[in-house]
Amino acid sequence: MSKLVIVGSVNIDSIETPFGTADRIPGGSAPYIGLAASNFDVDSCIVSVVGNDFPADFLELMKSRNIHVDSIEIVEDGKTFFWAGKYHNDMNTRDTLVTELNVLETFSPVVPESYKNSEVLMLGNLHPLVQLDVIEQMSEPKLIVLDTMNFWMDHTLDDLLKVIAKVDVITINDEEARQLSGEYSLVNASKKIMTMGPKYVVIKKGEHGALLFHGDEMFYAPALPLAEVFDPTGAGDTFAGGFTGYLARTGDYSFENMKTAIINGSALASFTVEKFGTERLLSLTKPELYQRLQQFKNLTQFDIELT
Amino acid sequence: MSKLVIVGSVNIDSIETPFGTADRIPGGSAPYIGLAASNFDVDSCIVSVVGNDFPADFLELMKSRNIHVDSIEIVEDGKTFFWAGKYHNDMNTRDTLVTELNVLETFSPVVPESYKNSEVLMLGNLHPLVQLDVIEQMSEPKLIVLDTMNFWMDHTLDDLLKVIAKVDVITINDEEARQLSGEYSLVNASKKIMTMGPKYVVIKKGEHGALLFHGDEMFYAPALPLAEVFDPTGAGDTFAGGFTGYLARTGDYSFENMKTAIINGSALASFTVEKFGTERLLSLTKPELYQRLQQFKNLTQFDIELT
Repeated sequence: MSKLVIVGSVNIDSIETPFGTADRIPGGSAPYIGLAASNFDVDSCIVSVVGNDFPADFLELMKSRNIHVDSIEIVEDGKTFFWAGKYHNDMNTRDTLVTELNVLETFSPVVPESYKNSEVLMLGNLHPLVQLDVIEQMSEPKLIVLDTMNFWMDHTLDDLLKVIAKVDVITINDEEARQLSGEYSLVNASKKIMTMGPKYVVIKKGEHGALLFHGDEMFYAPALPLAEVFDPTGAGDTFAGGFTGYLARTGDYSFENMKTAIINGSALASFTVEKFGTERLLSLTKPELYQRLQQFKNLTQFDIELT
Repeated sequence: MSKLVIVGSVNIDSIETPFGTADRIPGGSAPYIGLAASNFDVDSCIVSVVGNDFPADFLELMKSRNIHVDSIEIVEDGKTFFWAGKYHNDMNTRDTLVTELNVLETFSPVVPESYKNSEVLMLGNLHPLVQLDVIEQMSEPKLIVLDTMNFWMDHTLDDLLKVIAKVDVITINDEEARQLSGEYSLVNASKKIMTMGPKYVVIKKGEHGALLFHGDEMFYAPALPLAEVFDPTGAGDTFAGGFTGYLARTGDYSFENMKTAIINGSALASFTVEKFGTERLLSLTKPELYQRLQQFKNLTQFDIELT
């Protein structure tokens, strides 16, 4: 089993959806990634920062899932990154109501000595310079996966390009892929992004699934059509966590194995949206995950007969 | 091999895309459906109408593909249905510039005696009362597939509901499924539409693929990610033609076989968009189709290992 380093934000979130509201619950890219990856029994370590207002029992909960959390700095006189958002009726768009960076503003990541030799590094959505800093602390990771978003393309593109040049896999959504590449077709967009560094490009399309590109090869993972999406927060991070967790577990970073990794990420993300925040990830059992993986198989497999 | 009756429009189209223009070329739902279905060597018959301005050599061309075209009425002093449209840069949206119904306005469909006992009936997008008329002329079809659109939901919903009550399969796009059902989730939308008549609901999502629903079962067919979409006109009709052509060829109308039928429809549609109008469908060879089916297989197949 490979060790996995996760860098990302640890938040307090307030979420409003057409189904209700959740006030000041634990969230952030790192917990979703870590909890998703914990389904594969990997030895993972979260590098992040919180303030004195972050619930200690949630850190304990993550620890009980075999996630190393001592590397989450607790700033005693600081406040945790706070995000508040409201989802529209279609659940595909949302308004950000509040963003308070707080302790994240001066965050300087420190990877623990014992995790510097980890094989897999997952860079959750954060300032590119923080991501770069973590890359430089690692001794020789076999796989670096980057998640980022349009905000960094708009404001710190030069720094972001430096990170992109150093990673093996980038995961972004379709609009971000178009923005980053200047290409409308996702095939052309991914080809251009591969010239920037990553050998693998994962394009997330929300309810329309995800695409994996590598050289001239492509793989299409559907999203599971759901009767109800309760809260989409963390779906993308869960996807990334399932993807890297599965890869770290298997130690196989081939295109073929990434297909299965993406299906695992999609399956886990389909649970996250069923309840507020990390609630569903925390109650998830392995038989439930296996059953959903089988659903993905049924959803996509077919016979062709060349008549 | 089953016989296939196709009812739909036969048009003259003028198309403008970011890549160029095509002036007054043959089009319409029926030719796309017929040409797509002809890849499966079915005995098909188009029931439609044209004016004196429709190119006779195009009718001959369809005849040479084993499509019965004598059932296309030629109104000697009439003009063919004319449509002109312009696609936007994203190729997903278009403006209709001209719609001249012409001979379609008074069209009264007549199914030839020798095709009334056909097993499969494909109702291309047309006025619901014309579709109903054709259903009533058939003796006992084993499978009726309906294609329709929001225009008929807006203007002749009562008639459309009568048709929907009589068909086995309905194919519509995602927005239309939401409009028809009043449900946002496509899972819930399809369930509601199934209560209106069809046992199978196919939801077309353009570049995001297509979903097949039947009872509690689902199947997701991706669209092949393409570097360039040249002209999307006829993609949906080609999909429907490939779907029904494959089913007519195999005579197997089960959910399992419909999965393969949908992949065949998607593969054929991915060719249609490569050139203007029916051009690519006309030059298509079987080895090209087989190769693309294999691409769809590679695009979606994966192994799951339950670790």
